[in-house]
Amino acid sequence: MRVVTFGELLLRLKTPEYLRILQSDTFEASYGGAESNVAVSLSMLGDEVSFVTKVPDQSVGLAALNEVRRYGVDTSRVLLGGSRLGIYYFEKGSNIRPTSVLYDREYSAFAMAEAQEFSWDQILKDVDIFYFSGVTPAVSDSIEQAVRDALIYCREHFILVVCDLNYRSKMWTTEKAQKVMGELMNWIDLCIANDEDFESSLGIHAFDGDMAHGIDQIDTYKEGMKEIVRRYPNCKSVASVLRNMRTVEDGDWMGIYYSGGRFYESPVHTVHSLEAVGAGDAFAGALLHAIVRGFEPQKAIDFSITASVMKLMIQHDFNVVNEAEILRIMKTKDVNLQR
Amino acid sequence: MRVVTFGELLLRLKTPEYLRILQSDTFEASYGGAESNVAVSLSMLGDEVSFVTKVPDQSVGLAALNEVRRYGVDTSRVLLGGSRLGIYYFEKGSNIRPTSVLYDREYSAFAMAEAQEFSWDQILKDVDIFYFSGVTPAVSDSIEQAVRDALIYCREHFILVVCDLNYRSKMWTTEKAQKVMGELMNWIDLCIANDEDFESSLGIHAFDGDMAHGIDQIDTYKEGMKEIVRRYPNCKSVASVLRNMRTVEDGDWMGIYYSGGRFYESPVHTVHSLEAVGAGDAFAGALLHAIVRGFEPQKAIDFSITASVMKLMIQHDFNVVNEAEILRIMKTKDVNLQR
Amino acid sequence: MRVVTFGELLLRLKTPEYLRILQSDTFEASYGGAESNVAVSLSMLGDEVSFVTKVPDQSVGLAALNEVRRYGVDTSRVLLGGSRLGIYYFEKGSNIRPTSVLYDREYSAFAMAEAQEFSWDQILKDVDIFYFSGVTPAVSDSIEQAVRDALIYCREHFILVVCDLNYRSKMWTTEKAQKVMGELMNWIDLCIANDEDFESSLGIHAFDGDMAHGIDQIDTYKEGMKEIVRRYPNCKSVASVLRNMRTVEDGDWMGIYYSGGRFYESPVHTVHSLEAVGAGDAFAGALLHAIVRGFEPQKAIDFSITASVMKLMIQHDFNVVNEAEILRIMKTKDVNLQR
Amino acid sequence: MRVVTFGELLLRLKTPEYLRILQSDTFEASYGGAESNVAVSLSMLGDEVSFVTKVPDQSVGLAALNEVRRYGVDTSRVLLGGSRLGIYYFEKGSNIRPTSVLYDREYSAFAMAEAQEFSWDQILKDVDIFYFSGVTPAVSDSIEQAVRDALIYCREHFILVVCDLNYRSKMWTTEKAQKVMGELMNWIDLCIANDEDFESSLGIHAFDGDMAHGIDQIDTYKEGMKEIVRRYPNCKSVASVLRNMRTVEDGDWMGIYYSGGRFYESPVHTVHSLEAVGAGDAFAGALLHAIVRGFEPQKAIDFSITASVMKLMIQHDFNVVNEAEILRIMKTKDVNLQR
Amino acid sequence: MRVVTFGELLLRLKTPEYLRILQSDTFEASYGGAESNVAVSLSMLGDEVSFVTKVPDQSVGLAALNEVRRYGVDTSRVLLGGSRLGIYYFEKGSNIRPTSVLYDREYSAFAMAEAQEFSWDQILKDVDIFYFSGVTPAVSDSIEQAVRDALIYCREHFILVVCDLNYRSKMWTTEKAQKVMGELMNWIDLCIANDEDFESSLGIHAFDGDMAHGIDQIDTYKEGMKEIVRRYPNCKSVASVLRNMRTVEDGDWMGIYYSGGRFYESPVHTVHSLEAVGAGDAFAGALLHAIVRGFEPQKAIDFSITASVMKLMIQHDFNVVNEAEILRIMKTKDVNLQR
Amino acid sequence: MRVVTFGELLLRLKTPEYLRILQSDTFEASYGGAESNVAVSLSMLGDEVSFVTKVPDQSVGLAALNEVRRYGVDTSRVLLGGSRLGIYYFEKGSNIRPTSVLYDREYSAFAMAEAQEFSWDQILKDVDIFYFSGVTPAVSDSIEQAVRDALIYCREHFILVVCDLNYRSKMWTTEKAQKVMGELMNWIDLCIANDEDFESSLGIHAFDGDMAHGIDQIDTYKEGMKEIVRRYPNCKSVASVLRNMRTVEDGDWMGIYYSGGRFYESPVHTVHSLEAVGAGDAFAGALLHAIVRGFEPQKAIDFSITASVMKLMIQHDFNVVNEAEILRIMKTKDVNLQR
Repeated sequence: MRVVTFGELLLRLKTPEYLRILQSDTFEASYGGAESNVAVSLSMLGDEVSFVTKVPDQSVGLAALNEVRRYGVDTSRVLLGGSRLGIYYFEKGSNIRPTSVLYDREYSAFAMAEAQEFSWDQILKDVDIFYFSGVTPAVSDSIEQAVRDALIYCREHFILVVCDLNYRSKMWTTEKAQKVMGELMNWIDLCIANDEDFESSLGIHAFDGDMAHGIDQIDTYKEGMKEIVRRYPNCKSVASVLRNMRTVEDGDWMGIYYSGGRFYESPVHTVHSLEAVGAGDAFAGALLHAIVRGFEPQKAIDFSITASVMKLMIQHDFNVVNEAEILRIMKTKDVNLQR
Repeated sequence: MRVVTFGELLLRLKTPEYLRILQSDTFEASYGGAESNVAVSLSMLGDEVSFVTKVPDQSVGLAALNEVRRYGVDTSRVLLGGSRLGIYYFEKGSNIRPTSVLYDREYSAFAMAEAQEFSWDQILKDVDIFYFSGVTPAVSDSIEQAVRDALIYCREHFILVVCDLNYRSKMWTTEKAQKVMGELMNWIDLCIANDEDFESSLGIHAFDGDMAHGIDQIDTYKEGMKEIVRRYPNCKSVASVLRNMRTVEDGDWMGIYYSGGRFYESPVHTVHSLEAVGAGDAFAGALLHAIVRGFEPQKAIDFSITASVMKLMIQHDFNVVNEAEILRIMKTKDVNLQR
Repeated sequence: MRVVTFGELLLRLKTPEYLRILQSDTFEASYGGAESNVAVSLSMLGDEVSFVTKVPDQSVGLAALNEVRRYGVDTSRVLLGGSRLGIYYFEKGSNIRPTSVLYDREYSAFAMAEAQEFSWDQILKDVDIFYFSGVTPAVSDSIEQAVRDALIYCREHFILVVCDLNYRSKMWTTEKAQKVMGELMNWIDLCIANDEDFESSLGIHAFDGDMAHGIDQIDTYKEGMKEIVRRYPNCKSVASVLRNMRTVEDGDWMGIYYSGGRFYESPVHTVHSLEAVGAGDAFAGALLHAIVRGFEPQKAIDFSITASVMKLMIQHDFNVVNEAEILRIMKTKDVNLQR
Repeated sequence: MRVVTFGELLLRLKTPEYLRILQSDTFEASYGGAESNVAVSLSMLGDEVSFVTKVPDQSVGLAALNEVRRYGVDTSRVLLGGSRLGIYYFEKGSNIRPTSVLYDREYSAFAMAEAQEFSWDQILKDVDIFYFSGVTPAVSDSIEQAVRDALIYCREHFILVVCDLNYRSKMWTTEKAQKVMGELMNWIDLCIANDEDFESSLGIHAFDGDMAHGIDQIDTYKEGMKEIVRRYPNCKSVASVLRNMRTVEDGDWMGIYYSGGRFYESPVHTVHSLEAVGAGDAFAGALLHAIVRGFEPQKAIDFSITASVMKLMIQHDFNVVNEAEILRIMKTKDVNLQR
Repeated sequence: MRVVTFGELLLRLKTPEYLRILQSDTFEASYGGAESNVAVSLSMLGDEVSFVTKVPDQSVGLAALNEVRRYGVDTSRVLLGGSRLGIYYFEKGSNIRPTSVLYDREYSAFAMAEAQEFSWDQILKDVDIFYFSGVTPAVSDSIEQAVRDALIYCREHFILVVCDLNYRSKMWTTEKAQKVMGELMNWIDLCIANDEDFESSLGIHAFDGDMAHGIDQIDTYKEGMKEIVRRYPNCKSVASVLRNMRTVEDGDWMGIYYSGGRFYESPVHTVHSLEAVGAGDAFAGALLHAIVRGFEPQKAIDFSITASVMKLMIQHDFNVVNEAEILRIMKTKDVNLQR
Repeated sequence: MRVVTFGELLLRLKTPEYLRILQSDTFEASYGGAESNVAVSLSMLGDEVSFVTKVPDQSVGLAALNEVRRYGVDTSRVLLGGSRLGIYYFEKGSNIRPTSVLYDREYSAFAMAEAQEFSWDQILKDVDIFYFSGVTPAVSDSIEQAVRDALIYCREHFILVVCDLNYRSKMWTTEKAQKVMGELMNWIDLCIANDEDFESSLGIHAFDGDMAHGIDQIDTYKEGMKEIVRRYPNCKSVASVLRNMRTVEDGDWMGIYYSGGRFYESPVHTVHSLEAVGAGDAFAGALLHAIVRGFEPQKAIDFSITASVMKLMIQHDFNVVNEAEILRIMKTKDVNLQR
């Protein structure tokens, strides 16, 4: 099975250690973005995956592509052109100091690409699964249209569509998000919804916004998951990560998978994280891997939450862990399993 | 309102990460000192502040000044001259390994400055608040005299005097400290006393020296605060930080503000710190800001302890956070409020 | 005398050593731009100078401002607002490998500022000299208008206007440049023209484009300088840097100053450079200093070319050298004087 | 008293921070190995100690030796020759992500040394204590023979033999280990056995392999210690470290010393570690120091476990702490003593 | 056209800047080897190329592969297995201090691979050109046999064979080299011979070993090139790089290409290099590119020597430059063309 | 033969690359000083050498000692005590930008040591050669006395005394230097005098101060050398380094050795240096090695100047090269020999 992921690739500029941008004269440069992160997860897990985006044909754009290719992702379907690669600045928080992300992604080559530049019949040839997150249609109107085109193509060619709702308040309003995602949900087969995504992307209540008490609201979460399937009949499965976060680093993490009318709950992992970026993408990547490999639902959710929690101990955007490492953590007594 | 802070500016040489000096072939160079740290806090919070010191007119001295100016502090009243900038070497500890500070500040340009080099009538022109910490008079006899001259000038010109007692056993004995600070207290309007400062600087018992149980001794602290006001009638307010420290990084922090005959207690923050240097200065800076802006006492102490605890997640000496960030932490549920 | 410089401030992202962007996972972050560089030169030389620009009111914008303020430049007249700070990526070349600069400065806060945001009557109050380079009007139409407004104000208030033509082919065409600069020249009192600037900015032939033989064309250069003064009567003086560059690092450098109808030529410096960025701005800053201090024309050009050549041994955009250091190099036998 | 330690010295290549080898383009280079670590501990504690090994006579081998000599260890008895220095690659784990060690030590100069290259009558002249760990005989058959030769020499010359069993599954099987160590135990006077060493090296059951519950099994540990003394009459004392590890960093640590038919138990230290490498060697080094200085058994075990726990806050292989620092931690209230 | 290159991939550990291994506590880690370098050159130039080797299936081996893949080389034909990746330590020299390379490549996965592990019918399917250097058969007897097998396959399937003789005195003797290479030459279509390769690999005199006077011996070089074609009739073309090296960095470089009975000589480039590693491989890669694209012989040699000289300004093993950059240098006046 | 060197050991704080102190937030920390540098040279060359100084008994002092010990120098005769280690800040210049050294060495443990703390009968027991440079008596009056005591002891015990005059204008005046060195010369057997040392330390004219033309003044140098031997009959030999320096890095270097009434001149080395610190100490160390090993005078001076020139390509204070490396450079054609 071959997976295609579609979204924007960004340059990430992180200050060293916990320095503020006001203090630092160096940036660690890495590359990432929800859909590239998912693609690298799949490649690290041994699956065939292509990442589709548009980057400028200059050294920053090519360096970004090379970094994705380095981990084994096929980049031959990427468009080259436009003038700039989007950027996000990253200050790592700790304890009560929140992590800070500053976007500089407007006017990027991807955001300014026209919908018709993406030839879906070629891009999606011989593809079995199409993945994107809610970040992608939020990038620009033309990219929103490109997603719509892709989903129509997928529907016609029996390509499974998976979407992580991934609401970003810095990119669009809840009104716009609900309008767009509400429409796109009609073509989505499997949806991932975390935290505020239910409300912000779909207008469905599931979580009151208190990150310290996500797991405690498991019942409303389940109601929200059921409501998604009820409202969007094409969407047969929903997965969510629930968290009780005590500080920037300390929290409990669990996954729920609603599929075939049943709920599958993972154990709760209590962890202290190194870097929270990309944990959701690691969850999505692992869940796609579970689908590609045909894992049972319970194993799928256990595997996915473990991969997600592993990412908390990996620096940069990509979840550089392989399947054997995830399975070993699932089995070992070293994990702190509660509940 | 304009604030002037007066004290020594030091070069700080820190080994990378947690390396010992015996292991390291690099030092991270930053600059700081109690009163420069307070000045930067004020500038970051949007207040007008001048820092007064003496540094040698060579590149190390000027680099130190530039670093303070970078954050918006006025340095036009600084004296240039003398031959060396004081240094402190810094090894960061962790858990049971204590942080280690090694002073190399003797014979510095500041320590060797004569009292009369500081023309207080010019330095304190149009100034509303004068701040120094107990470190300053401990530097040398001539600097002690300079402080005395400044305080007399302040008294005559209705300039509010704020002092953090800040006892340093590596710089003077308790006998000397008590003699000097006991005299200076007569000109101080607001005093900050933490931990052993009560005993070492003023000979007043408030704390038994067990850092694991500071908050538990809140009652004797309050007695000590009252005793200060009783003994030094010019000093109408006292603020203190109380801590229960479990390891080098883990502890509970709270602030008390005794003002107008009433105690105002902040919530307790339970945090794991990145770097403890300058937390007291961040507290002092925030308290000065509260005075400049006319915060109510309860808001003042809540704001000050939050600023202080934020500093625990900021590297180097300066508390590089702005007012909005502190207010956001005060409101958010992400803080761990106990008691 | 007070100088104001007006232009864009950029984040510069340089790979370490000579790494290509394709190879590097770190960027050295510094800040610069022609007019901020000139401002820092003046401040390092002991002059009063304000830098005027617009930066976004977020950490990258403020970090840029702080860096300029660190060196003593007044930044109180800077506008805050807009969304992004322009960037330039920088790969350092060597020998036959050219240095590579990649701009990502479109849509910056400065480029998108409206002309009327700059209140010249306030910005230029009590100012004696106004400086900008040809980069500034190339930024956008609104900034071009802001420059025009400033020059009109200067003319009316007897403020000396100095401009480095500084043609940048990546920012505008020669047609556009000639049209705009041709008009602005009518308000410029002193102009700096280097290499291709004569032709590209003003359509005046002076140099055939062969960087290996700039000094060899000194006669056509002189003709060009005379032609500028003839064509634009308000412009009474012209200064130029002439170079014979053998490799990226090796070359001969000299300055010519045409003033009062006479040519003043500096000695030729044969040097191997560390980093060529900002050498022209260092020349401009030193020439402004010479004007502020009333140097004789011969000393002015000797001082300016020495400052410019010193910059070749200083990393980053700013020429962090003081007057004493430049004078020492002018006197010492260690300089390689030829011709 | 003079101590000799005998074993392999390795180049350690660690990725910066928590980077995976797949992500990193830099390695921090340090040097270590169980017996060199013990030697450095002794030297830091003020004892006379020589380290014996064989390293290639090229820059990597000499750099390794220099690093040991830097800390005051005598290296004049080291053999030079052979072609390569063994290496271990090191990825630091965190929380649920295990630390990863990858050996590249086969075919090293030490492993390929012949037993007769070591002239024990010269090496052990005027020596009082000989130390090696179970890693040494696991290196190769010839080194195993060298150990045997050394022990015979020690027996004949009344040199005390101390061994940390230190089982390494990546170097030999339990069958081979039990065969070899079972024989060598007849010449060992004091043995250190931790965790799985009892079972893997000697076939004695003491611990069920669950690192989360080592201290909880103190009774079977004690049985195992007694069984060692019973089975190997020459071995009169046994020391062990017991741990309850909750995550990679968090755990409880205690030491037991069985000597003269009595058990001496240290307090339990609850700590969060920075780097776990070498904690066992720090324990061994401190215990040897206690023997050299004639500490009472209770003080010996308290001192040794404190030294071991201190190492958890020190980077690299060597325990760069002195005696005063360890004694201070033993006395202070800052340590978390439980049980 | 598709190219396959076959050889060993090594981890390169370089000290920062010019530090000696005795001084450094960090290594810059990169990956390279003659044939991987050639493969990356081809990929950067836009050609289809596969690199074939064997690396251990652990993180160091995979990191090496990823680095090659990052630049677009196909690595799907690489064998995984064995236990270690070969290493070379690298100290960069300067001026009179020679660069120092220390091999630690014995017993590597590649060296210990059996000849029959390489299934040439699969590896060379649809391949047009096979490239290896003289380093490959020097690795081990089994790899020498693998090369022989490959060449026989190529002969039978009309695959062009290109070889850079690349003699390495640290890997084999001239006797062994001449015996092996003498036989392999019968299957080689195009051979690159530099400096001492003529004598050491083939026993043909062309160069007296004085690196300061390579170009000065152009006539004996030409005789040597003719002798190769005479002695090995299958080898129809020979290319060489000639150098006059004055210091470690300063020298003159030119290329000669003997093809179709004619000599084609490039201009001489006089350059100061940053890093000399891989310049020969850059020459070979560019020459292969010239063959793939059907460049005329004169353009082929001019292009190849320019690519080689460009590599002198690029850090690490790979020549990270594209075709447009090379062509620009060939045209520009910035190059120093002599002779 | 055993050599003792006596002098101050300093912490050297160097900015990275060519950064100015005003620009840098990191210092590279290394340790050095004329006499420690000579000691390390001797140890690297295989000789027995002890370094004698006084350093504070805290981590900075011990780190300095460890660094010397690391290279094999005996440090067992060093005094511990006092409060601070002297420092020098170092900015590396290039081309016309001079290297800048800023001393912060006043009030160091060494400078404040009393003469009688050095027990010369113990320190110089079994010693054959005593070395110091003119820096040592310039440190303080008490150290000047300690040197005098040592020389008297040497005279009485037939210990050869070698001194590099090493005048430092930042430490004393020429008057003071001439008075002190003039007296000490009566006990010195072999003296090294470079550049301005003749005039500044002894009042003998040999060089006009123009560093661009040192070698050109070889005749007056020779007169100066003869004058030294004439004036101080105990001093039977004089060695000098002559230089024509064109830029900070480019120059010609040669050595002259006047011994037994004859002059021995080395070839001239034309080099481009990486770092000029310690080249004189490398010369002195190599000359001492030549004496220890009994080299003929011509070989002695050739060897010494080669070692000195090698140091120009080695970073930090110590000349980390061995004898084989120096001999190889002396023989190879890679060196640029002129004259």
